[in-house]
This record gives sequence, structure tokens and C-alpha cells, in this order.
Amino acid sequence: MRVLITTEYDGTNFSGWQKQVNKRTIQSEIEAALYSIFKEKIKVWGSGRTDSGVHAIAQTAHFDISDTSIKNFTIFNKLDSIKLVKALNATLPIDIKILKARRVSNSFHAQFNVKKKTYIYRLETNVVRPSPLNARFVGTCLKSLDIEKMREASSYLIGEHDFTSFCNSRTSVIDFRRTIYDITIKKHKNLFCFEISGDGFLYNMIRIIIGTLADVGTCKIEPKEIKSILRSKSRSAAGKTVSASGLYLKKVIY
Amino acid sequence: MRVLITTEYDGTNFSGWQKQVNKRTIQSEIEAALYSIFKEKIKVWGSGRTDSGVHAIAQTAHFDISDTSIKNFTIFNKLDSIKLVKALNATLPIDIKILKARRVSNSFHAQFNVKKKTYIYRLETNVVRPSPLNARFVGTCLKSLDIEKMREASSYLIGEHDFTSFCNSRTSVIDFRRTIYDITIKKHKNLFCFEISGDGFLYNMIRIIIGTLADVGTCKIEPKEIKSILRSKSRSAAGKTVSASGLYLKKVIY
Repeated sequence: MRVLITTEYDGTNFSGWQKQVNKRTIQSEIEAALYSIFKEKIKVWGSGRTDSGVHAIAQTAHFDISDTSIKNFTIFNKLDSIKLVKALNATLPIDIKILKARRVSNSFHAQFNVKKKTYIYRLETNVVRPSPLNARFVGTCLKSLDIEKMREASSYLIGEHDFTSFCNSRTSVIDFRRTIYDITIKKHKNLFCFEISGDGFLYNMIRIIIGTLADVGTCKIEPKEIKSILRSKSRSAAGKTVSASGLYLKKVIY
Repeated sequence: MRVLITTEYDGTNFSGWQKQVNKRTIQSEIEAALYSIFKEKIKVWGSGRTDSGVHAIAQTAHFDISDTSIKNFTIFNKLDSIKLVKALNATLPIDIKILKARRVSNSFHAQFNVKKKTYIYRLETNVVRPSPLNARFVGTCLKSLDIEKMREASSYLIGEHDFTSFCNSRTSVIDFRRTIYDITIKKHKNLFCFEISGDGFLYNMIRIIIGTLADVGTCKIEPKEIKSILRSKSRSAAGKTVSASGLYLKKVIY
């Protein structure tokens, strides 16, 4: 049986999603929880990796489980998802929570079937040092930001583009074309919330986009320069990679 | 020169305020920061201890510093508080932040001059397991709570009482009389926020009060029973001690 789970996590104390030797990762914690419940080695396949320190409001992942193992978690051959979620949450550490689980067809794939992903980035402005009560959950910026300029700049990112300039150079991908469907920017006091949807994102892409939009917001560069940054296909043309702490995977659509 | 500082912290990874051998505490982190700046052993005296896991929005503390040491942080013999705050924050870990500093008279005492302290407690109801994104910052409760019953119950706690029933028995105090000035309870969706002001609080007193009010809120006990709980002067008469994670020292008034 193939099961799709939705999970929420505080990424601060993880070396990202993907399993790595001797590192605390979300994938390995979930696999460990499954092992402790089912005594079966089960590989968990995420909708994508999240980097070290990045949070998730609703990351998705699938795994396959043998009929024998899942038997105690079925009612009339249907997955008892409430029981499975409860068992997983009783086993997982406090910084990962399973929100829901459902059976999917064996041809469903948590990564390859993704149609749209939405991330949010929370950026606190005019701060030298974030409050200890939200330091884990925001990125920070010393100056104030011009929201209208950032909105104009973000409009040039919408659509299908080659995002080489917005990708960490330590990547193994070959195709840098991605489609951004939407970018919205909201402001509440000195906290900016960026929401970005697209068909997929390159390594550090959102964090580099936010760093570049912040350069627009502080008037370091003009909104229109986004176009030439895209054209240059050079990482050095774009802004800095902002801190992982402000980034959340909000939704995965299939 | 005596200096009064106001500090904010995420108490999760501390064994409380007070210095203890081989434990990470807020007092020792601030003393270590002062030592690294001034190369002088300086004792920091808090407005009171906060327990392990308890947060502060604005805890206060004083310390004495020699004229020689403070010289580089004065302008025309006045404390350059901005410079001092900046130096401390550059040295302190991310989960403690100094909000402000000011010179006080040598007779001022951060603990003994306290007139009023305000704490808040954030309690999320109807949850088996808190969201990983706020697990550090709320207490949780399985059931829903009747706010009007809790408000009635809290009215019986206002004023001067012997709070023996609401004090952890592992205490060294002799006088259990304290005055509670005010208790307000607000609700937003399933998050309750209790705000309690008083002239001082006994060991675990607020967490036991919240545990007892929650028993009223779930109809386990009647609001009026608060009176007999107070009269009994017995810890076992009151409710459970709720988790430290929901508790914040909000304000200290002198």
C-alpha cells in the first residue's frame, strides 16, 4: 500500500529534509518512526528536499508499506489514517508532526506528480537582532523596504524563465527553467510576508529571490534590473541568499 | 556604577534563570557576556528566577560595574546604554537579547524593589500535540475550556491570600502570603491567554494557578472551590502544574 503523508516541522534543528549519514534530518526521523512502529525498513519520498533550517507547514511525502505491516492500521481493507497519524506522532520528536495520511494509488509519486508548490518567507525589517521569541522563524534585514518597488520587481519573475541567476551554483540540475505562478507581498508593521508559487524551485532559489527583492526594497537596485539579472544567467548578478529561518514550505498541490 | 538591564529570552534551552554548576542558565550567559566584554567577574541579580523553560518578554536584572571597566561605555560620565546593549547583544547567544540598559542608583535593587510583576500564560486547547511551529511557546490542553467559569474562579484569587496550595512543596520560603492584583483571560480561536499581575509569585505558583483554572474550565471542579483550595493550604488540593513552555514574564514594575 502506498501512503501519502502531510507533515509540519520546525526545521531549525534539522540538517534539512534529506537523509544523510550522522545528521538529524526530517526524512530519517520519519523513517525511524515508521521502523519503530512496523519493524520494517521503509523509504520515505518527499515532494522535494527542504534545506537545513527551512520549516514546513505542509510538506508531503509518500512511502510503501507491506500489506502484512499495515494490517493493524486498516479497517475493512481501508487505511485507518487516524490511527496511523496517532502512532507516528506518538513516536516522532516534538519538532515534527504528521498532520494527515491517506492511501494513494501505487502510480502516485510525491515528487514527480507535483503540479504546484507554495512557499512563504517571513522577513522582519529594521532589526539588528531578532527577538529571541521569533528568531527561529523569521529572516531579518537591517533596513526598511519599499513594498511597491518589490512588487514591481517580483512581476518580472512571474512566468517561465531560466532561473540560473537565482540558483546556488552547487547544484546538479541541468534544466534551470522553472515557472513562477504568483508572488504576493504583504506587510504587517515591520514584518513582510512573501508568498511564492511555482511548478518547482531550484536549490536556494526562493532565498535568492527574497535577497534580490530586498535589494530592490532598499533601493540598492532598480525593479527593472530583475530582467537583466535573469538574462545574465549568473548567480553573482542576483542578491544574497537570505537566512533559512524565514522560509516555510506552505503547500504542495498535485 | 549600578546598571539595570531589561532582557528577553526563549527559555526552552535554559535550565532557568539562576546560575547552576554545569547548566546553561540565563544568568550565567549574561555574566559570561559581561566577562567577555569587561574582563571582570560581574554578578547579575535578576528581578527573580524564572524556571527552566519559562520565557521572558521583559525580565529585569541589575549588576555593578567598576568605573574603570565602564569608562569606554560612557559619554560625559553618562552611561552610553546603546553601546552597552549593542556589545552585550553581539556577545550573547541568539536566544537571549538585551532590550535596554540604564543607570540606576546604588540603592536600587532589581529584586527587592519590585512593586508588581506581570506574567502571561498561553494555553492552546483541543490539542493532543502542539504544532511544531509553536510547541516551544504554548502549553496545551486536550479539552475545550469554559472561559466564564475560569473568570469567576480567577476572581477568588484576586487580593492577598496564603497561596500555600498553589506553591510547589520544594520551596524554601516561609511566608506564603502574596497579593494578586489582576487576572484577565482572553481567547482567540483555541488559544487562551491568561495575564496575571501580583506583588510576587511563589515557586510554580502561576503554573499551578493555570492548571487549577483549567480544571475549572473543563468542569472538573466548580469555580467556588477555589476558595476552599486556598483555605486548605495544601498543594494536593489544587490542580496540576502546567508546562513551562506557555509561561512568559511580561513586565516588572518598580
